[in-house]
Amino acid sequence: MKAQVLNRYDDDLSASSWVDFEDVPDPRITTPTDVIVRLGGAGVCRTDLHIIEGVWRPNMDPTGKGLLPLIMGHENAGWVEEVGSAATGFQKGDPVIVHPKITEGSLLVHRRGHDMHGPGRFPGLDSSGGGYAEAMVTSVRNIVKLPETLAPKDVAPYADAGLTAYRVVKKAVRELMPGQFCVVIGVGGLGHIGIQCLKAMSAVDIIVVARSDQSLKLAEESGADHLVKADGSEFDAVMSLTKGEGAEAVIDFVGEKGTTSLGLKMTRPLGNYYIVGYGENINIPAVDLIITEKSIIPSLVGTWAELAELMALADRGLVRLVTQEYSLKDANIALKDLNAGKVNGRAVLIA
Amino acid sequence: MKAQVLNRYDDDLSASSWVDFEDVPDPRITTPTDVIVRLGGAGVCRTDLHIIEGVWRPNMDPTGKGLLPLIMGHENAGWVEEVGSAATGFQKGDPVIVHPKITEGSLLVHRRGHDMHGPGRFPGLDSSGGGYAEAMVTSVRNIVKLPETLAPKDVAPYADAGLTAYRVVKKAVRELMPGQFCVVIGVGGLGHIGIQCLKAMSAVDIIVVARSDQSLKLAEESGADHLVKADGSEFDAVMSLTKGEGAEAVIDFVGEKGTTSLGLKMTRPLGNYYIVGYGENINIPAVDLIITEKSIIPSLVGTWAELAELMALADRGLVRLVTQEYSLKDANIALKDLNAGKVNGRAVLIA
Amino acid sequence: MKAQVLNRYDDDLSASSWVDFEDVPDPRITTPTDVIVRLGGAGVCRTDLHIIEGVWRPNMDPTGKGLLPLIMGHENAGWVEEVGSAATGFQKGDPVIVHPKITEGSLLVHRRGHDMHGPGRFPGLDSSGGGYAEAMVTSVRNIVKLPETLAPKDVAPYADAGLTAYRVVKKAVRELMPGQFCVVIGVGGLGHIGIQCLKAMSAVDIIVVARSDQSLKLAEESGADHLVKADGSEFDAVMSLTKGEGAEAVIDFVGEKGTTSLGLKMTRPLGNYYIVGYGENINIPAVDLIITEKSIIPSLVGTWAELAELMALADRGLVRLVTQEYSLKDANIALKDLNAGKVNGRAVLIA
Amino acid sequence: MKAQVLNRYDDDLSASSWVDFEDVPDPRITTPTDVIVRLGGAGVCRTDLHIIEGVWRPNMDPTGKGLLPLIMGHENAGWVEEVGSAATGFQKGDPVIVHPKITEGSLLVHRRGHDMHGPGRFPGLDSSGGGYAEAMVTSVRNIVKLPETLAPKDVAPYADAGLTAYRVVKKAVRELMPGQFCVVIGVGGLGHIGIQCLKAMSAVDIIVVARSDQSLKLAEESGADHLVKADGSEFDAVMSLTKGEGAEAVIDFVGEKGTTSLGLKMTRPLGNYYIVGYGENINIPAVDLIITEKSIIPSLVGTWAELAELMALADRGLVRLVTQEYSLKDANIALKDLNAGKVNGRAVLIA
Repeated sequence: MKAQVLNRYDDDLSASSWVDFEDVPDPRITTPTDVIVRLGGAGVCRTDLHIIEGVWRPNMDPTGKGLLPLIMGHENAGWVEEVGSAATGFQKGDPVIVHPKITEGSLLVHRRGHDMHGPGRFPGLDSSGGGYAEAMVTSVRNIVKLPETLAPKDVAPYADAGLTAYRVVKKAVRELMPGQFCVVIGVGGLGHIGIQCLKAMSAVDIIVVARSDQSLKLAEESGADHLVKADGSEFDAVMSLTKGEGAEAVIDFVGEKGTTSLGLKMTRPLGNYYIVGYGENINIPAVDLIITEKSIIPSLVGTWAELAELMALADRGLVRLVTQEYSLKDANIALKDLNAGKVNGRAVLIA
Repeated sequence: MKAQVLNRYDDDLSASSWVDFEDVPDPRITTPTDVIVRLGGAGVCRTDLHIIEGVWRPNMDPTGKGLLPLIMGHENAGWVEEVGSAATGFQKGDPVIVHPKITEGSLLVHRRGHDMHGPGRFPGLDSSGGGYAEAMVTSVRNIVKLPETLAPKDVAPYADAGLTAYRVVKKAVRELMPGQFCVVIGVGGLGHIGIQCLKAMSAVDIIVVARSDQSLKLAEESGADHLVKADGSEFDAVMSLTKGEGAEAVIDFVGEKGTTSLGLKMTRPLGNYYIVGYGENINIPAVDLIITEKSIIPSLVGTWAELAELMALADRGLVRLVTQEYSLKDANIALKDLNAGKVNGRAVLIA
Repeated sequence: MKAQVLNRYDDDLSASSWVDFEDVPDPRITTPTDVIVRLGGAGVCRTDLHIIEGVWRPNMDPTGKGLLPLIMGHENAGWVEEVGSAATGFQKGDPVIVHPKITEGSLLVHRRGHDMHGPGRFPGLDSSGGGYAEAMVTSVRNIVKLPETLAPKDVAPYADAGLTAYRVVKKAVRELMPGQFCVVIGVGGLGHIGIQCLKAMSAVDIIVVARSDQSLKLAEESGADHLVKADGSEFDAVMSLTKGEGAEAVIDFVGEKGTTSLGLKMTRPLGNYYIVGYGENINIPAVDLIITEKSIIPSLVGTWAELAELMALADRGLVRLVTQEYSLKDANIALKDLNAGKVNGRAVLIA
Repeated sequence: MKAQVLNRYDDDLSASSWVDFEDVPDPRITTPTDVIVRLGGAGVCRTDLHIIEGVWRPNMDPTGKGLLPLIMGHENAGWVEEVGSAATGFQKGDPVIVHPKITEGSLLVHRRGHDMHGPGRFPGLDSSGGGYAEAMVTSVRNIVKLPETLAPKDVAPYADAGLTAYRVVKKAVRELMPGQFCVVIGVGGLGHIGIQCLKAMSAVDIIVVARSDQSLKLAEESGADHLVKADGSEFDAVMSLTKGEGAEAVIDFVGEKGTTSLGLKMTRPLGNYYIVGYGENINIPAVDLIITEKSIIPSLVGTWAELAELMALADRGLVRLVTQEYSLKDANIALKDLNAGKVNGRAVLIA
């Protein structure tokens, strides 16, 4: 089959092209729970640029044996092409979205539903082939059947970006009552889904903090109740909107350039600061947390069941992704556009 | 002051008038936590008809000493007129809604926030004077300040009917995920608020079961996703909508004429059947509950904090009450209209 | 291999013997997730007597094709003998306890961990062979590895009876605070484990209600704080112990002969009545539930993860089963003893 | 009456005496909800030493008007001496323990039960007189009636130290299953109560990390399952006990000298790090929290209801305080002993 292959790292993202459109061996069923998915769409994520830079080498290749050549792509959807002998419940042609982490499923952590934890593989990041291809192998434990309303190419980015936004919102709304506030910091691929989820799943007052007018516009279209420009006055603006007390929940999709301390300051006593984005240290006197009883709650992608729940939201039209389509052969263009900030919404490769 | 006084019971609601518009002594502060509220509106509830019939005598007058003359009215809102020496936080003129049950507050059950339980008084039902009057006494523990957007006469029915609908929905949504169903049985004063609360606070698919086309129309305006006429085919209709599995939550605002067994049958295994309306026995083989692990969860009015939360929903326009206003002197007309099924929404007396 | 086979029903349990010790085909791996377990112990449960009586025919054989010949035994533990090609994580010789319900695992209900719900098979009850044999087939999803401290024959009854007691206690303790009461009705194979779990997992005051002095003695040894004889005075006794208010939780392991209404009456307002045993209808005016906000919460066996948790309790010595061992060839004697009330604790067949 | 009065700060705790035994005006009822408590015991807390040093001036005296002269003592128990006109439910002579923070009670945060948050007074820390005296004023909202088994002088330190330990354990056990681990860092006045609470309220495996052999001995007597000396090898020891995965919960009663990073490292993915003690910054890369989904949950003293729950534990003998009694006139000796590390358990002043 054809695939876009990463054959060399590029530390400063300066090369003219990063991936090569090559013939590679067709994926094959090797264990009875394997499933081959013919790809309908593969989201292009900022993480992919970091992979090209080599940033993920220490994590994904701890032994230093080398991961290249690597087929990237961890936000995938398509159609079942072939199933292993123990892969029950699916048939050739079923449209599916692919949960990004493959686990074996027998450990207690997995029986409790925590699909992101414990040992596993991460196609598109480790040496398992990802979705920048015509087809890929995953496990029957990783695919969620799509309702008829949803086409694979339109939902692929939910597999990671959307799922991450959904999970943190699900954590937050469990404790949010009418009359309370939720601050969302950052309105990118995750934030605009997070705002829609908050709107669909709670009656909370949504305050969005973002840098650009374009982001604030997207926030408004996504359902934000209050827009706050991150121009230095954002703390005062949030405190004013919350009558001087801060928000019961703050969801930080940025996690760098000072948002962690800003987010914690905006959190009301007894409230929760949810951290999703990263890039800096959380650094706060223990006593400040204790006197206010503010908790710090991180969130990581999501579970298979949560991906199914998110598909139900999408099926009912309660969340909508903005996507920009590229042909698989134009993967370099998509990556370049992403790096240049020229993608509107989420780039998706179509095989 | 003037008040409408119930001086005699009328078992079959056949008398030409039920309450007498009389001069009664002005309410007075008798304990330091007392507050006098000048009434802006008093909801007229079906319970008031039952009081007239004498149905509540065994409960509210267990010693048989007699409750009459009685000033009815337990859904009240107005303005603070006078506060006792220990009634801090409120000033004359503050617009407030009045939580219906007065408790003293020092018991563990009350410190845990369960304002409907433990010993207390219930103005309008026991011998404490209710809201069919120009003013009434309550406790500082019972009043919730209204936001500027809400006029007392427009929100009075939230104090009981609305609060009851809100609390049960709050219980239900805590466990409802996107992709799941909630059946609402009955669309009266409670049901139409319940549907709006479900819509505002969750992404659940709402199926409403009701008898009349008028009720189903109100359900649709309130945000129902699916309308099912209770004409004998309702069980099949719900099972069809839920792909043969039933709904994860059923909220029964009727609780009589077979809705309890119907509601339990419509509940999916592992689901919850919430019971709010009453009039018949719940009668089910224990084994049927166990094999399906369906829980039966009743709900009773709500807490002070929940009334504050409901006011926040109303303040944001996420729930709206339909009311029909009557002058206090026309209380008999309002009660007659209610008994004749001629009230659109909720009748409210204006002093 | 050898197995005890049920070849005919016996409606009144009057036959001189019920099961026949026969040569049957060895169990075989037929799907990649199958596992063959060599049996170390098989609990003999009252359900087995009901199977002999034919009580379970309508449930387990809805098509009427006939289930016989049937190998009973749904409380099993032993050693892994052989694993299918997709049954990873276990090796021949691993000591394991067998969760009783086999599910395929890909449905949402199973991904959420509810192993007792959704479609599946129940070896020992349906036509799948159970544990009254030298070996049986189960799924890799059903086996929990035993710690070194626990021998299969000593823990087999945890697979059903113990797990059922554990799950309901886990539900109850989640809401029980120090200073509160839990009533346990019935002290048999389930009850004596339930009391130990309550003691280990909470600081609640445990009141046990049972009929015989022997049961009360077992309750005391299991950790009960208060013993109440079910001689007609039990309601008054419980109300007296709870200062007239009832218990915050009541766990009913009996569910017949009036315990359901008794248990609900003993439940304090805002409390939970947990129903595990069955045999009669729950029949209560809806209004009685609503005014008191008492919930009715059923519980059904337990999940794989809960079985793992129970093994951790047993491993630490926090729960102990009383068992009485019989050779597999003496299955009829064990069943007769059980029927005659002559088994001390739980009968276990040793292959 | 007689009281020990702090008339001057002593930055380096070098003065020969710190408080003066003086005649002061008798406490008086000034608002209807006031209650005067005759003291039976007043705990001597390390915070009192910090007050003497002047450490709390910025917090408790933000306007700089000065707090001196000050009667310290915020861990108090005694007998009701006099009640205000709105202080119902208590009579002269009732033995009570005194919740340390006085709030007015009408705010939403208080109606939800969060007695430590929102505006209020803190007798013994702010200018309200504390328990280093023959009597003090508190609110009827602050007193919990003692069962007959408990004498005021024996329970006074539960009002702050004990309550703090109880609350954090209550948070932790809600999520801890059998088979999981809880690490307790630090075994002082709080830690030894925390361990007993863990033992009473859960079946978790308790690992205690402490510096001195004496502390580890106290931990063992309190119910610890595993003792780990904090001699530099504690991280390895905990990882070894938890099979390389860390503990599902870590409760840090120290919060300084590196325990915050140590505690977070010992926390298993998906686990919770509870912070109670303080003195340093929590400083961790956001990405480390996110990849592991470890939450940071602080805890602050406790609520009135939690104090009632703790008294129920003490009443049943499930927690026991070690106290060392001093006469009120010997307050300086008690403070000096505390500063010198010579108090066994908790020092209590007896009026």
